[in-house]
Amino acid sequence: MSSLSYNPVDIIRRKRDGKVLSGEEIAHFVADYSRGAIPDYQASALLMAIFFSGLSESELVALTESMLHSGEVLDLSEIPGIKVDKHSTGGVGDKVSLHLAPTVAACGVRVPMISGRGLGHSGGTLDKLESIPGFSTGLSTEEFRTVLRRTGLSLIGQTETLVPADKLLYALRDVTATVESIPLIAASIMSKKLAEGIDGLVLDVKVGSGAFMKTREAATKLAATLVAIGRRAGKHVTAFLTDMDQPLGRYVGNAAEVNESLAVLRGEGPADLTELNRVLGAEMLRMAGVCSSEADAFSRIEHAIISGEALARLQRCAAMQGALVDLRDPNEPWLFDNLHTGAQTLLAPASGYVQRMDAEAVGFAGVALRAGRERKEDTIDPAAYIYLDRKVGEAVTAGQPLCHFAGAADLPKDRIERARSLLSDAYVIGPSPTPARPLILDVLR
Amino acid sequence: MSSLSYNPVDIIRRKRDGKVLSGEEIAHFVADYSRGAIPDYQASALLMAIFFSGLSESELVALTESMLHSGEVLDLSEIPGIKVDKHSTGGVGDKVSLHLAPTVAACGVRVPMISGRGLGHSGGTLDKLESIPGFSTGLSTEEFRTVLRRTGLSLIGQTETLVPADKLLYALRDVTATVESIPLIAASIMSKKLAEGIDGLVLDVKVGSGAFMKTREAATKLAATLVAIGRRAGKHVTAFLTDMDQPLGRYVGNAAEVNESLAVLRGEGPADLTELNRVLGAEMLRMAGVCSSEADAFSRIEHAIISGEALARLQRCAAMQGALVDLRDPNEPWLFDNLHTGAQTLLAPASGYVQRMDAEAVGFAGVALRAGRERKEDTIDPAAYIYLDRKVGEAVTAGQPLCHFAGAADLPKDRIERARSLLSDAYVIGPSPTPARPLILDVLR
Repeated sequence: MSSLSYNPVDIIRRKRDGKVLSGEEIAHFVADYSRGAIPDYQASALLMAIFFSGLSESELVALTESMLHSGEVLDLSEIPGIKVDKHSTGGVGDKVSLHLAPTVAACGVRVPMISGRGLGHSGGTLDKLESIPGFSTGLSTEEFRTVLRRTGLSLIGQTETLVPADKLLYALRDVTATVESIPLIAASIMSKKLAEGIDGLVLDVKVGSGAFMKTREAATKLAATLVAIGRRAGKHVTAFLTDMDQPLGRYVGNAAEVNESLAVLRGEGPADLTELNRVLGAEMLRMAGVCSSEADAFSRIEHAIISGEALARLQRCAAMQGALVDLRDPNEPWLFDNLHTGAQTLLAPASGYVQRMDAEAVGFAGVALRAGRERKEDTIDPAAYIYLDRKVGEAVTAGQPLCHFAGAADLPKDRIERARSLLSDAYVIGPSPTPARPLILDVLR
Repeated sequence: MSSLSYNPVDIIRRKRDGKVLSGEEIAHFVADYSRGAIPDYQASALLMAIFFSGLSESELVALTESMLHSGEVLDLSEIPGIKVDKHSTGGVGDKVSLHLAPTVAACGVRVPMISGRGLGHSGGTLDKLESIPGFSTGLSTEEFRTVLRRTGLSLIGQTETLVPADKLLYALRDVTATVESIPLIAASIMSKKLAEGIDGLVLDVKVGSGAFMKTREAATKLAATLVAIGRRAGKHVTAFLTDMDQPLGRYVGNAAEVNESLAVLRGEGPADLTELNRVLGAEMLRMAGVCSSEADAFSRIEHAIISGEALARLQRCAAMQGALVDLRDPNEPWLFDNLHTGAQTLLAPASGYVQRMDAEAVGFAGVALRAGRERKEDTIDPAAYIYLDRKVGEAVTAGQPLCHFAGAADLPKDRIERARSLLSDAYVIGPSPTPARPLILDVLR
């Protein structure tokens, strides 16, 4: 520490006391922490001080840029056209990226998408992609560029070279109870997205029982923060607030969610997934300037689906990334073999209507079945799944199925029972129908 | 961490969210941190969460007791009589322990006193004692017991075996901006005092520009917290709030403060030091049950001074702890050789009255002269000193001395200039006399 030209304790103290740090102070702290010159215990004290004192917009921009510049920033400028990505803050059954990226690519917009893994109750795009036999998400940035240039999209995971400061800080936040801080979440998301070399970003900020942000207020604050950082970095950014008070679609589980996404690409998907594809996609088209109006954008998206071009794009990308199956073929054997047999059934205890669902509990039921992870180092079972026969607002008769769920044949009994108990508690049945809930709650541009 | 039966992150998160931790959770965290099973970065995150969320009284008692039981707790029960100590929260020119301990011991009360070193602007009893040639403060607990039994007092520093958790936590707080937390300060003070094996404790909580607590509110809160912890531990505890808006006595500097304390023991000390000796001493006598009334206590203390018994006690203790000079002898050569010659003078820029003094600035002037430490590892110069010709409320004529100060002959010029500048800024001169300020502001029993 004696090699530093400033005292990290002063920086921690000033943030603790609610003062605004200079961009230079933040840049030094992040750079010196990343190179090991500031110890973890000082970084964790600063993170906790930020949890309580917050960050101003200028501090937030400085933190994001310091993290961004801790590693490689992709330069996609030699690939022609506007590059637009979508990022969801995460939820249960959220497989939108899998069909949205190829749909938008089919409309002529480049979609360089770097995704994460699931942790806890929420799923991750990488885990879903990796349930496809042979599909590799661990591409080099050069391979990523090649797939993007040739197919219009590429779907990969974080590389070692992008935003190393975020990897360090996230690991530290995870073990010091400093994950749940809006400025820290925002800087983590935006530093990774800005490192992709994109021109525009559509954010899907989830709200509700299955989301990280449980309340509309918290979600709005996060959305506004993300938009502000993106704007200050000179990018087009739009944030949608969308409902995550129940899972998206009918399936939770990795291969099962791929199947459901393929249904969307065949024009046979459930209404909520199809609607998000349409609305988020139209915004990406608008950003890229490839549509003349909203109606034009919707019509281009519909055409990309009906023509089969969206599905073809996904197949082209998947094949270049190593996939060994043909996702375009509705008779592809993998599609029929990729879920465990011998599903359990949860029956409705009473007749009535589903009033509410605890999406987080459904997510944790998935974790019990090993469809998700408790700890980062856990391996997951791509064939485990939950199928929701009933969702919010739907009628049910006592003794009829609410949902089905399946894990591996050798899954310990207590895990099956935990999943059943979580799913049983997740459903709230009542006598009267509930009013339909809007899927798209708000938009911040 | 996987060896722990609980998740430290849950404990950090719950404190962060303002929840009350159980005594067991706190005990586990402190014990596991002390043995290295919880890393520094988790402890610093918890400390910062405590800085913001505070601790309830039950949590505070649990924290104090967990720290206390991290090491040896002295058992002085085989030494007859009530054992009472005094602790000051620290200030500038606060040499009260040096004369109070022998005064109270001379009245028949055992005073086992474990003190600290100075840091930053505030002085420490150990540094003052060690300016006495030969005086050793690094006694074993067995030697401490022997000196206490034979002389009625012993004055030492923290041993390795007492409250190791406080040493670890204090070092971590120092580098993570979590020092200034009333519950953490209180637990640190009280765990060390309870480890002394005392029956009663008189606390001198300093308030003002030279104190750690700058406001009456903060000082009152700390005092109440200290009293509550002590009471819950079954001890007699009284806290005085006393003025530290200007230095105590006329001298700041280690050997100089010993000289001034000896003057108090000869009945020739300045009014403020003599008054604190009388008031704090009377409370210690009351706790020990060796006086019948306050007037009786005051009279016993006066007698201890006039009879020379208090001074004799200090000499007996000092001799047993290795001192090579006779503190009773007013012609002792060391008393005349222990200050640097060639003092600088700061002259009054205008005539009038001293309205205010910044005691902290005076303390830092002492640090510039090397009478104190900037960093824990700094060595100090026992012969450096400041003499305050004028204090608050006193008249001064332009061009007459406000104070004198001296460092070593080889002290760099810029340090002398820094001391002069700090002292010059510390004095506020105005045209009218200021009302006398009370020395004793409040008492909490």
